[in-house]
Formats: sequence, C-alpha cells, structure tokens
Amino acid sequence: MSTEGALAATVADVLRDGAALCLGIDPHPALLAAWGLADSADGLREFGLRAAESARDSATPVVKPQIAFYERHGSAGLAALEDVMAAARAAGLWVLADAKRGDIGSTMTGYADAWLRAGAALEADALTVSPYLGLGSLQPAVDAAIGAGKSLFVLAATSNPEAAGVQNAIAPDGASVAGGILQGVDALNAELAGDGIGRIGRIGRIGPIGVVIGATVQPEAMGLALGEAPRTPILAPGYGAQGARLSDIRATFGDATGRVIANVSREALAAGPERLTARLRELAQELAAGVAA
Amino acid sequence: MSTEGALAATVADVLRDGAALCLGIDPHPALLAAWGLADSADGLREFGLRAAESARDSATPVVKPQIAFYERHGSAGLAALEDVMAAARAAGLWVLADAKRGDIGSTMTGYADAWLRAGAALEADALTVSPYLGLGSLQPAVDAAIGAGKSLFVLAATSNPEAAGVQNAIAPDGASVAGGILQGVDALNAELAGDGIGRIGRIGRIGPIGVVIGATVQPEAMGLALGEAPRTPILAPGYGAQGARLSDIRATFGDATGRVIANVSREALAAGPERLTARLRELAQELAAGVAA
Repeated sequence: MSTEGALAATVADVLRDGAALCLGIDPHPALLAAWGLADSADGLREFGLRAAESARDSATPVVKPQIAFYERHGSAGLAALEDVMAAARAAGLWVLADAKRGDIGSTMTGYADAWLRAGAALEADALTVSPYLGLGSLQPAVDAAIGAGKSLFVLAATSNPEAAGVQNAIAPDGASVAGGILQGVDALNAELAGDGIGRIGRIGRIGPIGVVIGATVQPEAMGLALGEAPRTPILAPGYGAQGARLSDIRATFGDATGRVIANVSREALAAGPERLTARLRELAQELAAGVAA
Repeated sequence: MSTEGALAATVADVLRDGAALCLGIDPHPALLAAWGLADSADGLREFGLRAAESARDSATPVVKPQIAFYERHGSAGLAALEDVMAAARAAGLWVLADAKRGDIGSTMTGYADAWLRAGAALEADALTVSPYLGLGSLQPAVDAAIGAGKSLFVLAATSNPEAAGVQNAIAPDGASVAGGILQGVDALNAELAGDGIGRIGRIGRIGPIGVVIGATVQPEAMGLALGEAPRTPILAPGYGAQGARLSDIRATFGDATGRVIANVSREALAAGPERLTARLRELAQELAAGVAA
C-alpha cells in the first residue's frame, strides 16, 4: 500500500457527511482458506493488507480489525496486526480496533496505553471496550482517548439472543443496562462538547465516545432512547451475514442514522480479494440508498 | 527457571487441598521501575520470569499474568508473555491468563483458540472472560476449555463501586446479573460433572468453569448465593492493596472458602524481587490462618 495519506481524523470527521461504511477485517480460518491464504501470521498480514487496500480503493473510510483472529497466532499474529494497522492508517483509513477490552484501574490504563497512545506499537484511532465492570471503570480509557484525539466505542446493546440476561436487566435507577450505558456515554460527550472536542458537521456536534449497538437490535425493545443521546456516535455491526440490511438502516436508527458507522464483514469479505473493492462499492451504494430512504 | 515440572493440573487439582494462593503478575510501569527494570519488552520478560520463580520457590500454585501490561508493548510484549507463561507452566505452575476477553460466535472461538488450545503460542491453563454479551455467548470458550482440560473464570461480581450499575441490575428472571452468572456457571458445571470432568477432592466435586468474585464483595448484597453454586471455583482478586485481608477469607466466602483461588498482586510484588519469595510464604501463612479461622 502507499503510505501517503491524510492525518488521522476524529470520529466527527468520519461522520461529517453522515453514516459511514466500515469494513471488518475478520480473518477467521475459513476466510483465510477461501482467500487462498495460510492460517499463519503471514496469511493474517496478507489478508489485512489486501482488505485495507480494497477499503482505500473503494473509499470505505473505516476498517475494523477483529483482534481475536490475530491473537490466535500470539506475538507473531500481533506483529502482523501492527503492520496492517500502520499501513491502513498511513493510507488515511480510520482504524477501529475491535478488541472489546475492559478492566479497572491501572489495568484499564494499560489497555488504553496499548491501543490509544500515539506511537504505541498497536496504535489505533479507536477501540471497542466492554463495560461489565461498569461504565465508570472505563474512565482511564476515556481520558486516554480524549487526550490523544481518539475514540472509544462502548458495548451497549448487541444482537445475539444470549445478551438479554445482562443488557436488558434493570439497573437500580430504573434504566436497562444497555440504556444506561447509552445515556452515560452521551453524558460524557455532553461534558466534552464544552471543550470543543466535538465538531460541527452535517449531523451536528458529536463527541468522541461512541457505543456499539447491533444492527439487528430493536432499540426501543432494549430501552435505548437514541434521540436522547444526540452527541453519541454508534458502531453498528451485523450488516449482511447477521441478517440486517444496509437498506434498512434508517428503519433501525431513525434520526440517529447520520451518526452510524455501519460495519460489514463476511458480507463483503466473502467476495474474495479480487472482487472485494467492487463489492464494497456496491455496499456503499446500498448504504447511501438506506440513508436516503 | 528450571523446566522440569508437573503436568498441567486441572482447577480441581489446584483446589484439592482447599483455597489456593495466586500471585498476580502485574508489571505496571511503577512496579517495573521499583524492581529496577526498564518499561520495555525485556523488562516485562524479566519481571514475569522472576515473579514465576518466586511462585515456584514459595510453592504458590497459581500465577495470573495481567495481559494488559504485556499488551502495552504490542507484539514484543506478547513475545515476552509467551516466554513467561511457557516457563511458568514448565515449572509446574498453573497459569491463569487474566485477559477478560469476551465476544460472540467465531470471534469468541478465536479468543479461546488463542489462549486455551494445546500448543498455542499463548497457551494458558485458564482464562478470565467477560460476559457483557451474555453467559451463553461464551459457549465456544466453554467448549474449548473442556476439550483441552482447561478452565475459564467468568466475571461475576467485582469490587469496584462503578460495577453496580451492571452487576446489581435485575435480569428478567428476577436474579441480579452477578447472581445469574454465578448460577449459570454452576449449571454448566453440574452438566459436566456427569462426564467425570470434575474431580473428588477435599472440597467435593467441582467443575472446570469458575467465576470471578472480588475479595471485597459482600456476596449477599450482590445477590450471590454461593451455597447454591457448590461446583464452581472462585477466583478472588483484591487481597492486599484493594483492602481485603487473607485472614478474613472465611468471613467473606464461608463454606465456599475451599473453592477460592485468592489472588495477591501489589501486596506481594511491592516486596521487590529479592523479598518476593519470603513475602509469598508469609501470605500463604495468612491464607492458611484465614482458612482455619
């Protein structure tokens, strides 16, 4: 890949023109085989670099490497991931590391330092995090993201049926767990907006801390008041293989549609390396049609 | 370190004689400096190897590397971690990777493959996992652990005050989130007991899937019915620096005390590399006194 590229953007830049397409880089063993690549660190590197090239060539603004598939090969896999993320960022792509990290105190600081520090080996533009230890436990990562001009995406509501026992539970304040995460994140962004960290775009002022809401989630059924969280970007995985359609994005997210980063993984990657760029262009058209619906 | 050692044991072996001491390997930057080590991959390797040596020399049966601190240095940090875990396992220590991973489907399978597969670069004896996506989402890791004779420890109730908004929330079935995780894990162990995976020890038959319950948690206040989860091992972090005392272990865990792996990190590591072995022997005596209380 070429290494010239834009400076790393903020999430507000990514969403300046509304909903943005994201390519998941999910090199699981079956996809490596389908792409003719070895299940090895070299295969992982080649897969990631080719996926990032297709994202650049199709003007897909965001890539989301799924860290588990690199971690399978230990330090050699992470060395491949470092190369993929560095090349993608150098090419002007916004790199969202899907690691779902979550811990407390100095350990949470450690994860933030690993993924969100300028110059870190694994430096990304954004990181997914998991709030089982409470939204407040993620504060070290919130501080690190803000300090570095980067983003976090906090798991809120996911599409899988097993999630209800946690995410639909009712917290002491009467909100669902998922709804409480969404409101808590928006409150963080509201505080930050006063610092000028948000940007004015077509969608208004948004903050750097986002949530993850599965594309097949019914927001109202999960207690998610999207309209009451107007400053919060949304990462929506699940388009394609998990059953949601980009053409339905407005039906799911309504007035929040312009704040959505819509992720496609298998739906795009199954096209294979030669067809991936063209497939991403098709999916961008589907997304544009869904946004306009 | 010497590389002779026992075959990797199961968690039932670890707990055969009752509560077991665990040394957290938490090389955060301040501790590296206090040990006279560089904040680098080499420093992380040296810290981990010396901590594991002290665990071996003091007959501390379990070590728990905190993965975030190795991840800070990217692939080089993970290469150091691989060396530390391999040396610890070769010396007969039981290695519990504290990574708090959690995801769904093939991604969860990827994490299990990274940490729980025999021969994996990052092979451990047990892994901590996070259930924000629901206990059922962890099933690929449950299957992997059982298949490999290894263990999982699922986050249930942690000590930090921010956790209440998630862990004390009430699920649709009327249980607290934390209580539901505990009961769900015990149900998994009950199923498995029929397959002879549990072992008969002094504490009775226990299964391979554990929970994490902070040492300063008040189990009843969190909706945790420890007596109704008799097959489930418990990892209890928080002894020492976070305020819990090993001498109080029975006051917290009652009849479940014999199923507890009690973790000390800073409380031991602050002794420094020369004093660590002696400090671990003292802490083992405190634990024994607490168990006998």
